[in-house]
Amino acid sequence: MHICDLGEQGLLQRLQSFCPSDVIGDDAALMTVTPGHQLVVTTDVLVDGVHFSWGNANPEVWTTSPHDAGWRAAAANLSDLAAMGAHPLGITVGLSLPPRLLVADLEAFYTGLVDCLTPFDVPIVGGDVCRSSVMTVAIAAFGQVIPQHAIYRSAAQPGDAIIATGYHGGSRTGLELLLHPEQGIGLSKDDYHYLIQTHQRPHPRLDVVDQLDTIRHHCVRPQNALNTFRVAGMDSSDGLADAVLQICRASRVGARIDRQAIPIPPALSQWRSPEIAMRWALYGGEDFELVLCCQDAIAHDLIRQIGSPAAIIGTITSEVEVILTDSTGEWNNEMIQFSHSFQHF
Amino acid sequence: MHICDLGEQGLLQRLQSFCPSDVIGDDAALMTVTPGHQLVVTTDVLVDGVHFSWGNANPEVWTTSPHDAGWRAAAANLSDLAAMGAHPLGITVGLSLPPRLLVADLEAFYTGLVDCLTPFDVPIVGGDVCRSSVMTVAIAAFGQVIPQHAIYRSAAQPGDAIIATGYHGGSRTGLELLLHPEQGIGLSKDDYHYLIQTHQRPHPRLDVVDQLDTIRHHCVRPQNALNTFRVAGMDSSDGLADAVLQICRASRVGARIDRQAIPIPPALSQWRSPEIAMRWALYGGEDFELVLCCQDAIAHDLIRQIGSPAAIIGTITSEVEVILTDSTGEWNNEMIQFSHSFQHF
Repeated sequence: MHICDLGEQGLLQRLQSFCPSDVIGDDAALMTVTPGHQLVVTTDVLVDGVHFSWGNANPEVWTTSPHDAGWRAAAANLSDLAAMGAHPLGITVGLSLPPRLLVADLEAFYTGLVDCLTPFDVPIVGGDVCRSSVMTVAIAAFGQVIPQHAIYRSAAQPGDAIIATGYHGGSRTGLELLLHPEQGIGLSKDDYHYLIQTHQRPHPRLDVVDQLDTIRHHCVRPQNALNTFRVAGMDSSDGLADAVLQICRASRVGARIDRQAIPIPPALSQWRSPEIAMRWALYGGEDFELVLCCQDAIAHDLIRQIGSPAAIIGTITSEVEVILTDSTGEWNNEMIQFSHSFQHF
Repeated sequence: MHICDLGEQGLLQRLQSFCPSDVIGDDAALMTVTPGHQLVVTTDVLVDGVHFSWGNANPEVWTTSPHDAGWRAAAANLSDLAAMGAHPLGITVGLSLPPRLLVADLEAFYTGLVDCLTPFDVPIVGGDVCRSSVMTVAIAAFGQVIPQHAIYRSAAQPGDAIIATGYHGGSRTGLELLLHPEQGIGLSKDDYHYLIQTHQRPHPRLDVVDQLDTIRHHCVRPQNALNTFRVAGMDSSDGLADAVLQICRASRVGARIDRQAIPIPPALSQWRSPEIAMRWALYGGEDFELVLCCQDAIAHDLIRQIGSPAAIIGTITSEVEVILTDSTGEWNNEMIQFSHSFQHF
């Protein structure tokens, strides 16, 4: 069955079944922001052919199934909230849809959204549908944060430790395997599966926001008093290199990153050369980890809380450059620049 | 100059010049919700060729210029907030853009957005851009309301007066004149201009939300105590008939509407037959007025506050039908049904 067979009211009824019934059916949805918290808002646009590809394509060549596209769309938005230190409240979904889209694909997309949102108790609180020749999904996500706990890109200071909350390069590797499955012959079944999942089902690091809350709560040592509990950062959705560069630009600082300290999935290190593994870790993108900058003592507390493979990957400097160094001396220093990142235009 | 000549960073810089500098540049934007208020969220999707038409078309045949498209997009979202009784806080804008779109057209669109938002002090607090073959705009709008003041579709009760806050049919008439300018020869210059403006620059009725606050504030008579100050309703963006039908369906009631009481712009009444004028008033849509249901005494207070042409157009009944009556007896009763409204699919 296609969208056009349902009609607009029929389509809306199907989609509303994915939403809590008490927030749906009015001109707008109501949500409660806890007193003392600020509202945090982010939005993402996904377009068929750019972020996913299943409108009328052959399912055999899909790299992102409708279910995965839904999961990834939700994950990207929750990751933006985590990157602000915020706790999620809800999302809205604005759809432009080709009339010949299969209803089953749209429902699989919504199931993917809900599967990613449910562990965090995040409801879909509203949306809009419109006809178009190209499927486009615009998600707006809402969260809340105690103003002093917000994580800004611009708050990094020289001397700060730089944390990566998890592996980088896995998502890019998974995409490579989806595009060229024949190249994965040397990989174990577990590694193959792990890398594909890393690409298709990224996990937004809202758990790190909770862990920051815990550390802040237990932070009674005077040298770590609340007014010095400053965490800068963003997520690594556009790549680890891009995240460090954006933080440095916003904070007017530089950074030194030790290539030996960057957490790279063992499955990737074993499969590809160190050059390729490092390129995918730095520039691959879509790992949806957090890149955080804070005082050394807090950084150590935090990576202990998060556990392996979270790591301190470098230091904020008062220079303007972002330099990739090598603590083993095997590789020359290298300047990291924006040009490698993905550009839409 | 086209979007693709600017590059993504250049494009973002241009668009950020339309946003307050203190909320831009992070993964998400922070806004303050006043304690005791609930967050209200709504979203709208606009697609080139459906809601506007200026991607690569001949400017001579545009019915909605980039500036007007921006204005109307902002107005539609603010109208949804007004329909919930909410005060606006901000909007986000998610864009999918063809690389060959003119930068000047995109900036004109943003100027239209800002021109509509500025009188209400509403900032653009964030957004996202992505490449696509079809221009799509997804706006999410945020507002706040004291929970007891929220206007729901489902709260109408038999005996309630039904208010239309202003003229209906003007927007549809303006569209007709834009599509067939030659038909407007009989109209005075002022009427012609008024009807075109009604279509191109609708005004969201946030002023009515303020007026409801005023009435509520001065409402000291015991029979109008706060717990009986109940206002149901929605906006008439999809037509006056659609609004009454939606309210009745959500509230499980019926309505009788007096065709003589519906405020129709004199310029339309003089220009077209009573049948056409009534059809455009009921089903034309995009007038962005509010349709409110409340006790008779409050309704009279409210239309006195709003002033002409706001009017009581009918009564909520305990039946299930919505009937168009005629207090002069000239026209037979007529049942109003959903089928005339615009359907996307």
